[in-house]
Amino acid sequence: MWDQSVDVLVIGSGFAGLSAAIEASKAGATTIIIDKMHVPGGNSAISGGLLSAAGSPLQEQSGIYDSVSLMVADMLAAGQHLNHPNLARIVAEHSVEALLWTIEELGVQYKDRLSHLGGHSVPRTYNTRTTSGAGIIRPMLACCRKMGIPIRLATYLERFITDPQGAVEGVVVREGYVFPNAESGTEKRIRARRAIILASGGFARDVAFRTIQNPMLSQDIQSTNHPGATAETLKAVLTIGGTPVHLSHIQLGPWSSRDEEGFGVGSMFSMLAGFPYGILVDVFTGKRFVNELADRRLLVDAMLMSGVESIAIVDQSGVREASTLDQCLKRGVVAKYDSIEALAEANHIPADSLQLTIRKYNSFVEKGVDEEYGKPISRDSAPITTPPFYSIRLISKVHYCMGGLLINEDAQVMHIQSQLPVGRLYAAGEITGGIHGASRLGGNSIVECIVFGRIAGQKAALETIRS
Amino acid sequence: MWDQSVDVLVIGSGFAGLSAAIEASKAGATTIIIDKMHVPGGNSAISGGLLSAAGSPLQEQSGIYDSVSLMVADMLAAGQHLNHPNLARIVAEHSVEALLWTIEELGVQYKDRLSHLGGHSVPRTYNTRTTSGAGIIRPMLACCRKMGIPIRLATYLERFITDPQGAVEGVVVREGYVFPNAESGTEKRIRARRAIILASGGFARDVAFRTIQNPMLSQDIQSTNHPGATAETLKAVLTIGGTPVHLSHIQLGPWSSRDEEGFGVGSMFSMLAGFPYGILVDVFTGKRFVNELADRRLLVDAMLMSGVESIAIVDQSGVREASTLDQCLKRGVVAKYDSIEALAEANHIPADSLQLTIRKYNSFVEKGVDEEYGKPISRDSAPITTPPFYSIRLISKVHYCMGGLLINEDAQVMHIQSQLPVGRLYAAGEITGGIHGASRLGGNSIVECIVFGRIAGQKAALETIRS
Repeated sequence: MWDQSVDVLVIGSGFAGLSAAIEASKAGATTIIIDKMHVPGGNSAISGGLLSAAGSPLQEQSGIYDSVSLMVADMLAAGQHLNHPNLARIVAEHSVEALLWTIEELGVQYKDRLSHLGGHSVPRTYNTRTTSGAGIIRPMLACCRKMGIPIRLATYLERFITDPQGAVEGVVVREGYVFPNAESGTEKRIRARRAIILASGGFARDVAFRTIQNPMLSQDIQSTNHPGATAETLKAVLTIGGTPVHLSHIQLGPWSSRDEEGFGVGSMFSMLAGFPYGILVDVFTGKRFVNELADRRLLVDAMLMSGVESIAIVDQSGVREASTLDQCLKRGVVAKYDSIEALAEANHIPADSLQLTIRKYNSFVEKGVDEEYGKPISRDSAPITTPPFYSIRLISKVHYCMGGLLINEDAQVMHIQSQLPVGRLYAAGEITGGIHGASRLGGNSIVECIVFGRIAGQKAALETIRS
Repeated sequence: MWDQSVDVLVIGSGFAGLSAAIEASKAGATTIIIDKMHVPGGNSAISGGLLSAAGSPLQEQSGIYDSVSLMVADMLAAGQHLNHPNLARIVAEHSVEALLWTIEELGVQYKDRLSHLGGHSVPRTYNTRTTSGAGIIRPMLACCRKMGIPIRLATYLERFITDPQGAVEGVVVREGYVFPNAESGTEKRIRARRAIILASGGFARDVAFRTIQNPMLSQDIQSTNHPGATAETLKAVLTIGGTPVHLSHIQLGPWSSRDEEGFGVGSMFSMLAGFPYGILVDVFTGKRFVNELADRRLLVDAMLMSGVESIAIVDQSGVREASTLDQCLKRGVVAKYDSIEALAEANHIPADSLQLTIRKYNSFVEKGVDEEYGKPISRDSAPITTPPFYSIRLISKVHYCMGGLLINEDAQVMHIQSQLPVGRLYAAGEITGGIHGASRLGGNSIVECIVFGRIAGQKAALETIRS
């Protein structure tokens, strides 16, 4: 009946899946990872490589007070208190441990400055030296290689096989699958003697499924995600009793460029320079319209609801941390100007109004208080006065699925009817739901993937072996 | 294998289930209704009996211009455009037909004045003479009796039996079930030769399931619903491939009384008198804080977010339509005062501030324009000047589940994986999701139940008979 057996089978090779596999293998379980795509790393590899942690070494060095409770409070405020607070707390509690694990066990290299991302009360976000999730995925892949954990690419999960008690016993996969052709490849049956861990990510690119949950997110709306961010695994789990939670809460990113496809290089320019050190302006009025460091939901609502055409503007002093700047300039995603007048003219912004907006904002920076929109002004902020000036034209793109499968604190998938765990089934990362409520904060996905990925791997390895 | 066979099996005996059964039976299908409770009518029977329709006879008599498009626009605005617009339009298009069906076929009696409920652009809501959903349920039950449609009470749907193609073939029920004891009763198998129609309602009283979707809605929050408003049927359908949509969008009603349990008699007093003809005031400040005719989500947000303690105040001229007034007074839900001073004193409201608030509001009524909160002032509104004055102390209670199963325009339950209908499975009413988006408007549930219940019954009767 089975073509192959393994102790722990991991579905997906992003942050959550690789973390889970490393822990399961370390605990002595034979482990295999499958991924439907022909390259590993999924959406994680193309992400910005931001990891938030409460009480980190860099915070201590910079004299920034932070705590688990403050991080949880920020998550709940952005999440409109739809978050499952016990799960949010686990992420925050293990955040520094996850960070240190990537440094000490995997050798991940981070920049030596924290970023202050929207919705966080304090700067608490690390960023990889490469300004990309690949800066974490590559060391994770190297670790898997060293540990002898095979990653079977182009291997699509077709369906689960459950035992008479409803526990998962194995899966039918299609080997040699060519995304997105459901008929491609050949069927194989893999048995999981201990457990299966789901880490197949979100569904931001699954237009059919996302429009069921939110009809506004039609195919006309771009996404930052890789093409494989589709919902097949999530759907398959729901048919064996997985509990859906918050599926209609789908996040758009407010920081992506109009002038390139996908996540691109512009998103990180906005996050590292434009939003913290610059201003967001409505092209039609030349005025600010929002706290640039509000959480993503508030920013996107402000952009979409009021019909503004938004552009971020920052000066030379504000682009210190913008490691993607050269690429942005080369690709025409960011434009550079000698003066505010030139920037205004090129972008058809009323110049007088823009000058006034900048003078006003600069006075807030000098006082350390944004009297208009309440943006937290960081101590290393400077007035926008130093040429050259940079601008990036923004558009909202579908970025992240807050919703997914309900898990418990041990990363077990909860059965919708019994309210008990589905036997031998774990999940971590974007396929799960409930941790972030109505809006996820920046840098909180990577840390969540690692925290719950590791928990899933550790717990899965402890399941008894099926005879 | 089967204890009984029937052409069409209907689960639930509220507005949707009874409408479906009547239509299926009329089309020649043998039909049985089951309901887990020991009384028929479910939540429908204790509802306020409000039915919204666009372009109705009473609107024509009153010279109120309305249209299907305006009703759909109102639904989408309240629903934050999460609504499935094709389904919302079907409700609006068939709304007058549904209304006339209840009058002409069932003999339902309505009051001769329309209500203007929150979020509707115009008065478009009929109300039964009895100010209760029982005013529709009783004629529906009489119709079923006349047509010989049996209603099996205390009969709990335990699970579905599907055929090898995934179509539903029948159910296992527990006869003699005593809610909520899952072990009670004895198992029987009922075969549905043509189809099964799900009309089992929402899950506002299912604290475990509603807190998964929204952790804030703990058992400390009251509900307007009957105890049977739980999620078992919804969960069972999800395990056979039903598609969940908008489950985390759960509505609280802003108009219920602090001084009684459940929906009570106060909710309709607020809807028919306090909100349209009176004002909502914060007890602490004596000031208005919201458009009293905003949709329920906006009202509840305004009440919860700003921590107001809200009370509705109306004068003698505003209680004309408040048919539950006597009961409210008798039960201490509404209090009556000779003067505004007395009302303020008894409720610990700053009297000067309240007087000022009322004077200001009265000036808006005289102008016909609410310059403060944009409440639509109806032509039959009068200034709040005529004693006695009435007040009702309000608290938000869990009222309605916008989310549920995805259906298509023929009321077929859609399979999450195939994106095709689940064979022989229909659904209507509160168990479905997507029609109302983030917020349902008042009076739109009854009309939806009848419109899609009838469609489900008609289509189910057309399924081929299983041999």
